[in-house]
Amino acid sequence: MKNISELMIDLAYSALIYNNKEIAEEVIYLEEKIDDSYYRLQEAAIAQAIEDKNSSKALLIIRLATSIEAISDSAVQIANVVLQGVEPHPIIKESIKESDVTITLVKVADESVLANKTLGEVNLASETGMWVIAIKRDKKWIFGPTENTRIRSGDILIAKGPLESVKHFRNLCSGKDKRV
Amino acid sequence: MKNISELMIDLAYSALIYNNKEIAEEVIYLEEKIDDSYYRLQEAAIAQAIEDKNSSKALLIIRLATSIEAISDSAVQIANVVLQGVEPHPIIKESIKESDVTITLVKVADESVLANKTLGEVNLASETGMWVIAIKRDKKWIFGPTENTRIRSGDILIAKGPLESVKHFRNLCSGKDKRV
Repeated sequence: MKNISELMIDLAYSALIYNNKEIAEEVIYLEEKIDDSYYRLQEAAIAQAIEDKNSSKALLIIRLATSIEAISDSAVQIANVVLQGVEPHPIIKESIKESDVTITLVKVADESVLANKTLGEVNLASETGMWVIAIKRDKKWIFGPTENTRIRSGDILIAKGPLESVKHFRNLCSGKDKRV
Repeated sequence: MKNISELMIDLAYSALIYNNKEIAEEVIYLEEKIDDSYYRLQEAAIAQAIEDKNSSKALLIIRLATSIEAISDSAVQIANVVLQGVEPHPIIKESIKESDVTITLVKVADESVLANKTLGEVNLASETGMWVIAIKRDKKWIFGPTENTRIRSGDILIAKGPLESVKHFRNLCSGKDKRV
């Protein structure tokens, strides 16, 4: 649940910056998954409490899950701004792009060292601080790619990371920088 | 507001993992700052709307700020679990530590290459993916350090980043790895 709720927040901001309804719709879809997990977790916690004859662990788990569920609700609120067709003001886009942790969108060139490598092989997150949160390939999206997801030339990557990493990341995608 | 709300979430999880009430109290303190910003932002947005004779920009800003405020409320809920003295179950700590983005705590040795450098000088975030979110120096805490914050030997750093970066980060702090 924690990982999904964090992905939802990142995607919601991405949807806002790029005014993209497809990304916003993914946030709504992920909310359903969060809700499912939330209810299953509540059930499991209470069943465990009955078995243990003790409520403290169940209460803790339910309270944490409630907090995480609330985070995912906030992501949905941001996504709804995009889905309702309110064009975000440029100042909002800029303020997100210029915060310490920024979001950037870039196309992978044929000559990029990232092309045909999995995210795990290139260790982008640990080598550059950039996390790929979504990939657009032709007309399809891959949201929350894993270390086994293979990058292809022509992919459009949406990534999140330190402002000072963006240039290197863009150069890796364009093929200008050859070393991760 | 976005940066502070994200720091609050990271600190709340840190407080939970390390069962640390001082970190949890910082989350409560930051919530007051968020609330202040939130009310000032609402006022400014409405004043602007009156001047523009148009409500759309103000509505958008208020809705976004409301979402961010809700995220910070969730951080407070997590922090309150810690403040109320509920000892987190080891499974919860482990599940946070083993998610893709982990949180780690480590002491800076005298022989560490990080000692006496600012965070900006060592480019930890862009070179290793690790973000220092809090520093304990003697009995004092520095929360949300900036690029100008100087690391000292003896500091205890709490950092967030990719699971695969943790070993290198710990080796940098211990002095075993000499190159960031």
